[in-house]
Amino acid sequence: MLTIAGGVTTPKGYRAGGMACGIKRSGRPDLALLLSETPAAAAGVFTTNSIRAAPVTIGIRRLSEHTESVRGVLSVSGVANAMTGAEGIADNLTVLAAAERALGVAEGSLLPACTGVIGPRMPVDKIVSAMPALASSLSTDSEGGERAAHAILTTDTRAKEAAVRVRLRDGTLVRIGGMAKGSGMIAPRLAHLHATTLAFLTTDATVHVPGLEHTLNAAAERTFNMVSVDGDTSTNDTVYLLANGAAGGAPADQDPGFREGVEAVMESLARQVARDGEGATKLLTVHVHGARTAPEARAAAKAVVGSTLVKAALFGADPNVGRIACALGYSGARLDPSRLDVTIGRPRQPVPLIVDGRPAPGLDNGGARRVRDLLRQLDEVPLEIRLHEGRASATAWGCDLSYAYVQINAAYRT
Amino acid sequence: MLTIAGGVTTPKGYRAGGMACGIKRSGRPDLALLLSETPAAAAGVFTTNSIRAAPVTIGIRRLSEHTESVRGVLSVSGVANAMTGAEGIADNLTVLAAAERALGVAEGSLLPACTGVIGPRMPVDKIVSAMPALASSLSTDSEGGERAAHAILTTDTRAKEAAVRVRLRDGTLVRIGGMAKGSGMIAPRLAHLHATTLAFLTTDATVHVPGLEHTLNAAAERTFNMVSVDGDTSTNDTVYLLANGAAGGAPADQDPGFREGVEAVMESLARQVARDGEGATKLLTVHVHGARTAPEARAAAKAVVGSTLVKAALFGADPNVGRIACALGYSGARLDPSRLDVTIGRPRQPVPLIVDGRPAPGLDNGGARRVRDLLRQLDEVPLEIRLHEGRASATAWGCDLSYAYVQINAAYRT
Repeated sequence: MLTIAGGVTTPKGYRAGGMACGIKRSGRPDLALLLSETPAAAAGVFTTNSIRAAPVTIGIRRLSEHTESVRGVLSVSGVANAMTGAEGIADNLTVLAAAERALGVAEGSLLPACTGVIGPRMPVDKIVSAMPALASSLSTDSEGGERAAHAILTTDTRAKEAAVRVRLRDGTLVRIGGMAKGSGMIAPRLAHLHATTLAFLTTDATVHVPGLEHTLNAAAERTFNMVSVDGDTSTNDTVYLLANGAAGGAPADQDPGFREGVEAVMESLARQVARDGEGATKLLTVHVHGARTAPEARAAAKAVVGSTLVKAALFGADPNVGRIACALGYSGARLDPSRLDVTIGRPRQPVPLIVDGRPAPGLDNGGARRVRDLLRQLDEVPLEIRLHEGRASATAWGCDLSYAYVQINAAYRT
Repeated sequence: MLTIAGGVTTPKGYRAGGMACGIKRSGRPDLALLLSETPAAAAGVFTTNSIRAAPVTIGIRRLSEHTESVRGVLSVSGVANAMTGAEGIADNLTVLAAAERALGVAEGSLLPACTGVIGPRMPVDKIVSAMPALASSLSTDSEGGERAAHAILTTDTRAKEAAVRVRLRDGTLVRIGGMAKGSGMIAPRLAHLHATTLAFLTTDATVHVPGLEHTLNAAAERTFNMVSVDGDTSTNDTVYLLANGAAGGAPADQDPGFREGVEAVMESLARQVARDGEGATKLLTVHVHGARTAPEARAAAKAVVGSTLVKAALFGADPNVGRIACALGYSGARLDPSRLDVTIGRPRQPVPLIVDGRPAPGLDNGGARRVRDLLRQLDEVPLEIRLHEGRASATAWGCDLSYAYVQINAAYRT
């Protein structure tokens, strides 16, 4: 597997683009369109929130009806189209139909996604009017992918793209690309076919729908589902994976290289989402080793990245080891407090924080200053946690809690 | 039932006091001592965190051994005595023994509690040296209770006390008083005999231990367990209830007035804790009506007070109704998104926020300004949520998320 520069247009047979139609007051791009040049197999994972945005309802329905003949995704940012009732469904169907007409693809073959303020209805006329120009602007090059990646953002400070190239067991070279959006209201709670933030992945591998669904679910569980920015699970979280087979070759359903490739792209996007958490100044990466079971490993890692107190301490570069232990203690993972070990810092130069369940020796004196200096230096803070209860491990990503988070969220709408 | 001014010394036969022994750099009081003049029945609820502070371990053990002959509580603030291993247990036993000697009460008859920084050991010598002076300073008047209430605080901005007087069915007049501490790291997760923040309650009613335990558990479930400040469950949460029978009369085990009295004192303390959340500028009170079951009603109410995004919007006086709906959607409570109703403001002048699952009419125009003005005015923000799924209801208390919260927690230790 080779990590390469790129995004959703890196795999063969995809076009993408983005533009501004005036939904955002800032004038930033708010419409993204992704097209597969031929019908593609598709899978999706969606929010588990029982209040679903209209595009989630439509996306779930369309995937069950047109799952082998999807042509692309229309993403609208600036308005969530949630709490909009039957009118919200009708609005979204109207803009999807306009996009399908402009692209000349079958009715019902585009998947929807929205992100933005909950409550208001979509400005249907603005979106419909923009469709012909947007459809004709799509391009197969990386610039098209970048335009789309920018057009799905809201409070994000940067676009998030990733791509890999994988050689399958039959020798076929396939590509997997993706883009994601997300910086606040991120705490995915996945179940089967239920997921996380906004992300769209493409591949030119040939994959049947069941293989695609399995690959997407498994990867989401280990990537987007392990990101926590503020503990709130959105009404709009949506991940789509399209496979158009443009690279040829045998079906990749059972190919481990393909699965690893999808997971690598999603992990890269998940890390970028965590790093771009609202107001974040640091990425926190928590590795839990030696948990009794995989779910307990995941619960322990997520409790630490999700702890408001750990996040605030991280922002203050405060080596407050008690808060880490406390989060592990309420995570539900089985642990023996007298055997807990935690280190911080780069894998080759780990600095002990907790040894046998006690603060590392010297942490109250000069040691604390050393950890503080380390925390100030690091843009990415890796935390290694060892529970010594079994062999399961997990990784979670989060970020610190800053004044800027409060500012962004106290004033987002007003 | 009559709400009266007072605290732990309001019931007959209790003495209390507090002093500074130099644990806190600020020089503020850090030792609180509560004494029942005769052996008392006692019950406790403790944190569910699997990393328990030494005083929690000791408290649980002593309650199981001396449950009918407890003489009081020694509370230390500024140091949590957590992650301190066997030495932490020994330290705490040493200071408890010193207090018992100074008071002339039986060994093992005092219950411990600690709150403060996790990791460091207790300054045993300082505490032991202070015991004779502290023991002789105890008084039965309200001033003694106030001194104790101040000495259990850490980042709290004010002492929290409450008291009621209740006439039992047999005509006996009994008193229930309490004090509490808590402003950060508060998100109790109660199970039977497991609880929440730091709170000590006294009564001069005659109650046997099983009745006391039942009363305390039930009241904690509806009061402290419904407070959320930052979602973190502490290693030290402890609530004790002592009953010394000094008022005479028949046992109050089955007396509904007694139970209501305990719940009223705990509710008052819980509200005071939520209002004094770190950096809080407003108290948020969420009432959920019409849930399918009581656990679902509680989950829904707690999801709203616990939502970081709702808390930030509240700080910004932003009527962001989508965030309220979103929190209800992931709470796990069954709800039909098209029947959700939410109002804000005083019960007699409710202002609709969500009607039939949609933002209330006009909320995007002049209505939003009206709600914003209301939010700015109110020191306590009552939110009424109607799910229309059944008859269960619940109340939860929280506060807004301000810049000050981040500041306090980024720099608490350093």
